[in-house]
Amino acid sequence: MAPERRDALLAFLALGDRLKHTLRAAHTGARRENSAEHAWHVALIAITLAEEVSPRPDMAEVLAMIAIHDVVEIEAGDTFAFDEAGLLTQMARERAAAERIFGMLPPEIGQRLRASWEAFEAQETPEARFAMGCDRLQGFQQQVECGAAAWREMGLTKTRSLVRMQPAIDLGAPFAPMIEALYERAMAEGLLRTA
Amino acid sequence: MAPERRDALLAFLALGDRLKHTLRAAHTGARRENSAEHAWHVALIAITLAEEVSPRPDMAEVLAMIAIHDVVEIEAGDTFAFDEAGLLTQMARERAAAERIFGMLPPEIGQRLRASWEAFEAQETPEARFAMGCDRLQGFQQQVECGAAAWREMGLTKTRSLVRMQPAIDLGAPFAPMIEALYERAMAEGLLRTA
Repeated sequence: MAPERRDALLAFLALGDRLKHTLRAAHTGARRENSAEHAWHVALIAITLAEEVSPRPDMAEVLAMIAIHDVVEIEAGDTFAFDEAGLLTQMARERAAAERIFGMLPPEIGQRLRASWEAFEAQETPEARFAMGCDRLQGFQQQVECGAAAWREMGLTKTRSLVRMQPAIDLGAPFAPMIEALYERAMAEGLLRTA
Repeated sequence: MAPERRDALLAFLALGDRLKHTLRAAHTGARRENSAEHAWHVALIAITLAEEVSPRPDMAEVLAMIAIHDVVEIEAGDTFAFDEAGLLTQMARERAAAERIFGMLPPEIGQRLRASWEAFEAQETPEARFAMGCDRLQGFQQQVECGAAAWREMGLTKTRSLVRMQPAIDLGAPFAPMIEALYERAMAEGLLRTA
């Protein structure tokens, strides 16, 4: 292995550490959740639910997408699903970050990882949709389990929340019944406003 | 989906949140790293290095192993690689935790996830060895990048460190050259003692 290739790989992997300091809107315990531990939790959901959908998705693709899906947040930051101003600039910020981050790698590796990220974003394959369902389920369950301070602070309504969650519900089982049970709990606990 | 099955899945996924509070010996920034973000970082290494080894391992298996490999630490805690007393009881603690944690799931899912964990532990397949290489590389690089306070505190020698790292070095490229470069840096920066 050429020293330049070795050093490029080490530099990219060292950069990965920074995703542990990209904070999300949800809490875990008394602190904010970060995007690295979120991504692990999404992978746990994916392997747990892998055989609950038919046909079974290609799990190598699904888990690669999940591992890479938030890496651009190292530079672009996490954009809360209901941050309207942030959402307007999210795509441009994330694309610029992708150029820099994937550009650190030997080209064929950078292109392969970028292709996984693009495939997740494009939502055109069963694998991308399954990964999206796991991602949305994690974000939703994390808020419900941790008291949803971010939802309560902004007065989030169930209707507005559903704009975010409907694509995951539309995947059917197992996502729909799990998310519906979490909505029931969120409403019962006053984490979301009616309407 | 039967409500009992749905609720068992939700309870298992909610339990997963606790791995974000299992602290490791390494630091990330000013705080300790947790096992959930570690597991994500190992997955990032795996997808980055997937095509650097030949034959290419089955990445669905590798990434499932990586996602599950530390889940027993939710109950058993992380055991530092050089904690001799902890290592003596590690297997018994982790097996008891596995019984309880995987036992929360519908049986066929619990058995499948437990099989991934057992396969990683057994180190009998190319996939398990590749996942181990990624796990050791992450732990080592994390210490080197963050100043290795835990190594310096215990006066860890390179010889003793190699007992832990040799299985990953023995995998050859890309692990060997990357780990060797990190050793050079660790020695130059005084993170490990000579001998």
